[in-house]
Amino acid sequence: MKLTGKKVAILIAPRGTEDSEFTKPKQALEAAGASVTVVGLQKGRAQTVRNDLDPVAEYAVDKTITEVSARDFDALVIPGGSVGADKLRASPDTVSFVRAFFEQEKPVAAICHAPWVLAEADVIRGRDLTSYASIRTDLVNAGANWTDEEVVVDQGLVTSRSPDDLPAFNAKLVEEVAEGKHPEQAASV
Amino acid sequence: MKLTGKKVAILIAPRGTEDSEFTKPKQALEAAGASVTVVGLQKGRAQTVRNDLDPVAEYAVDKTITEVSARDFDALVIPGGSVGADKLRASPDTVSFVRAFFEQEKPVAAICHAPWVLAEADVIRGRDLTSYASIRTDLVNAGANWTDEEVVVDQGLVTSRSPDDLPAFNAKLVEEVAEGKHPEQAASV
Repeated sequence: MKLTGKKVAILIAPRGTEDSEFTKPKQALEAAGASVTVVGLQKGRAQTVRNDLDPVAEYAVDKTITEVSARDFDALVIPGGSVGADKLRASPDTVSFVRAFFEQEKPVAAICHAPWVLAEADVIRGRDLTSYASIRTDLVNAGANWTDEEVVVDQGLVTSRSPDDLPAFNAKLVEEVAEGKHPEQAASV
Repeated sequence: MKLTGKKVAILIAPRGTEDSEFTKPKQALEAAGASVTVVGLQKGRAQTVRNDLDPVAEYAVDKTITEVSARDFDALVIPGGSVGADKLRASPDTVSFVRAFFEQEKPVAAICHAPWVLAEADVIRGRDLTSYASIRTDLVNAGANWTDEEVVVDQGLVTSRSPDDLPAFNAKLVEEVAEGKHPEQAASV
């Protein structure tokens, strides 16, 4: 398997993470042989949504954000959902965790509203990316080069616009994790 | 009554506007004698939420955004709710409507996540304001001077952080609407 031995963290908010943007990348990584750890803000189960608002399912949190370090992983995935991404960025521990992946030159993938967390971590100056269209202004104001494409790959940073882009997002995510460290990730920190 | 003859628009998203941030300012304005028009993105009824995610109630939309002009009103209120504010900013007609209140020097009040709509309209450069803490970075990146206070009033621009601040927010809102036009509102456009 392409990603055998690779350890990947995927973030989840207590409520409001978009279900498909959590489950589909996780499945794609596991199908490629990676070990995926669900990292939450608190112990117990986290509730996902569809279309930002409608409850879908609950998932077990494997580790809380205070129990992990970026050093434990080879890559990071941040799912969207307006409320979920807003809650993730409001957690200073989470923002530090995200920033450490950039400092350690490791691949990071963010979809839909998740790039808000990258803006909060101040790691996107001069970087090419995309997102859900509504947050374009926030990302441009944070220094990013925003483009309207199903997936944008910039030296270990993988971004997409919405659940419709998941096939392209997952394919590039697996590629970037397989490649390993990308020195350019540290250049924008 | 202090606001007799004053016409105020209040925005509502199809889903995801925070219930108390819609109902309480509307009640305060009406109690002071103002006429309040509910402006939505589409005809029919709009569904509000509590704590960003839990459905609360449905309200009739009086006018859609394409049926109104800032010239029809003396002031504007923008309620929060993460999803609601995100949907409002994604509507170009709504962003133009918000911007016109600043151009016309009229009071604008925004609470919680609603200042995202002000960032989208690019009307907050050099302005003093507050918001829900999670979006502080987006507002600072858009040029605002952000402070952590229950209500900030800057020459016709009234902002607060969360539903807990509604009493202070509503009191200042009524004051600013009573005062009428504020030339400084146009200075940041």
